[in-house]
Amino acid sequence: MADVIRSTTEFAIEAATGGVTAPAGFTSAALHCGIKASAQKLDLALLAADATVSAAALFTVNLAQAAPVTLSRTHLEQTGGRARAVVVNSGCANACTGVEGYTHATRMAAETAAAIGCTPQEVLVASTGVIGVMLPIEKVTAGIRKAGTAMARGKGSEAAQAIMTTDPFPKEHAVVVRTARGSFIVGGTAKGSGMIEPNMATMLGFLTTDAQVAPQLLRRALQESAADTFNAITVDGECSTNDSLFVLASGASGVVIDEETYPALLEGLLAVSRELAIGIVRGGEGATKLIAVNVRDARTREDARQVARTIANSPLVKTAVHGADPNWGRIVAAAGRSGVRFDVDRATVHVGGVLLFEHGLPHDDAAPKAAEHLKGTSVQIDVSLGSGGGAAATIWTCDLTAEYVKINGEYRT
Amino acid sequence: MADVIRSTTEFAIEAATGGVTAPAGFTSAALHCGIKASAQKLDLALLAADATVSAAALFTVNLAQAAPVTLSRTHLEQTGGRARAVVVNSGCANACTGVEGYTHATRMAAETAAAIGCTPQEVLVASTGVIGVMLPIEKVTAGIRKAGTAMARGKGSEAAQAIMTTDPFPKEHAVVVRTARGSFIVGGTAKGSGMIEPNMATMLGFLTTDAQVAPQLLRRALQESAADTFNAITVDGECSTNDSLFVLASGASGVVIDEETYPALLEGLLAVSRELAIGIVRGGEGATKLIAVNVRDARTREDARQVARTIANSPLVKTAVHGADPNWGRIVAAAGRSGVRFDVDRATVHVGGVLLFEHGLPHDDAAPKAAEHLKGTSVQIDVSLGSGGGAAATIWTCDLTAEYVKINGEYRT
Repeated sequence: MADVIRSTTEFAIEAATGGVTAPAGFTSAALHCGIKASAQKLDLALLAADATVSAAALFTVNLAQAAPVTLSRTHLEQTGGRARAVVVNSGCANACTGVEGYTHATRMAAETAAAIGCTPQEVLVASTGVIGVMLPIEKVTAGIRKAGTAMARGKGSEAAQAIMTTDPFPKEHAVVVRTARGSFIVGGTAKGSGMIEPNMATMLGFLTTDAQVAPQLLRRALQESAADTFNAITVDGECSTNDSLFVLASGASGVVIDEETYPALLEGLLAVSRELAIGIVRGGEGATKLIAVNVRDARTREDARQVARTIANSPLVKTAVHGADPNWGRIVAAAGRSGVRFDVDRATVHVGGVLLFEHGLPHDDAAPKAAEHLKGTSVQIDVSLGSGGGAAATIWTCDLTAEYVKINGEYRT
Repeated sequence: MADVIRSTTEFAIEAATGGVTAPAGFTSAALHCGIKASAQKLDLALLAADATVSAAALFTVNLAQAAPVTLSRTHLEQTGGRARAVVVNSGCANACTGVEGYTHATRMAAETAAAIGCTPQEVLVASTGVIGVMLPIEKVTAGIRKAGTAMARGKGSEAAQAIMTTDPFPKEHAVVVRTARGSFIVGGTAKGSGMIEPNMATMLGFLTTDAQVAPQLLRRALQESAADTFNAITVDGECSTNDSLFVLASGASGVVIDEETYPALLEGLLAVSRELAIGIVRGGEGATKLIAVNVRDARTREDARQVARTIANSPLVKTAVHGADPNWGRIVAAAGRSGVRFDVDRATVHVGGVLLFEHGLPHDDAAPKAAEHLKGTSVQIDVSLGSGGGAAATIWTCDLTAEYVKINGEYRT
């Protein structure tokens, strides 16, 4: 990156402090409203822009969609991509809750609108937690009223706490993007951590920026950045009823995003989203290792993604990595059943940069070196399909552990 | 079933003793040739018909196909569906072993042909065990020569032992099919037990019958019976390099199978295959419970299969069953991400016959009763998609346990 930004297409990105309220023009508040049993645990967060701003969102592709998903989608359609606030609760997904659940989501929006001073359509709603349980709606609305009086800057970390369910740690990140037109900030927070699979699973993500972006361009940037970040992670191949990824652009930096500066916005969103998405995988249920599955030399990008995804979701690959076993055979077998056509004899497999499989044959002498790599907490699996095409893709996943089984045999989602 | 068989389309099926050598016209031998470390463990089996007979097979759809798979497919093409013997080893998959591996498979066929007295093309070869390791071929060929001198009837159980890898118990079954034309027997043996998923995974299956069947009809019966048995099971969604299912028909019973008696053969194959397939799931790595996922009221049979398969492969459903948690939410979420369109509000979920989800809402008062059912070792999940179509399908799977993780973090496939 250039130190001095000269042309309008040049830009530089640096990590910044703060999370979802790092960009100018946003405030937040978080508290315990009483959904979670422990009074120590935050379970409600409000995020608001100082005025009505551009907004975009991506939602779960699961047919079973939670009430807040349906409501938020409707609101964004009604406003044409404008929003003022986001209200989110953890501890209860408000999914499979019928008409009453939809009424609850509507009441959350209305109460937030009253607290912030906007229309209910300008409020986006998200919920995460147990499916099929009714929200204690009076507690939630009381919490919203209280949160509305406590909105402030610099409290993004509390919001990051308030959206957690089984996440072992909060996830937030921010970057400064310097352009010839000036600097803007992109910030965000997200939560996992089970039911994670491309197309977002029980993932909630909230991104903000103080760049000035029209709703349509913001939506395009969100889709494009999510494809290689939030939609390129998987914990267990599951996809939930509540997945939502939101972005709000306040414009407070005065930096206008158009076709020329679009790449700067995209890279800013990518940088924050990548960090958050990898954080979700690192914090995956029972996970002890982050696994990056890189597939290259595929005919198409979709082919590369499909092979990477099949490897990343293979229980045998994930348990082998957990056991630090450089089991290239399971990697080849997973690629072979992915549905993508390729010539196994032209494919190669590297683990931690160590060549383990080539010309249809193993390099078992290299296995001990690869096993050393697997003992670490960041694992690299590289597969070349040898198709002569230049397409590549990366999917991030985590190892499969006895702890995952324990968590999910005991925790009621 | 009728006690007295009057018409040629009537038939009755009864369980019989013996496994793969229960039908007349087959002999077998099994021994320890030295692939497995422990001299107590059988690792080689020969199965032979008294003469060259009709044969058919189904193989893995994985792109990475082991040498014995390639060779056996070629042999069946060359003979037009005729075979005399099957040779199978456990402990080494002879997969990802290149040209040398193919030579080894060829030598196994040639040695068996010499021992039995047939052409190499009349020999089918199967291997199961570790991928990417060369067979100790001299030990194997010595074993084949020795086995060739010990062929006898009534030793099918030893063959069932010799094909095991991580299987906790051997699997064999036989039935007598009584028709107006006389009785015939169907027998078989199979092994699992990880990498099990529709399209057969590291599954080896060997079926025999003394019915008289033309190769083409035998192949049709094998495909049709496997679709609802061996291809309707999944342990971990994996599909291996070596999966093979063979059937040999000796004709020794004198009962001719034509279009009229085809249903009797099909039911006989289904009865034996179902027992073996369910045995594979029950013996799945780390499994403590058999789970039958029944999906009905789907628009097409393929829709029903796809939904059932997605539920059966869901780690969250499998861990919930393990923990005896009647978590219908995970079942609905898995169905919802299966890719099949249906109206969630018209769908119902029963666990152990207990209604847990209907009209988009839970019946949580019934959860304790369903939890009781889940404490057993045979679990029934019934999902109606409410599509108005009459299609249905069943997929069998097992629970996901910490033991699965332990086995696969330590065992090198």
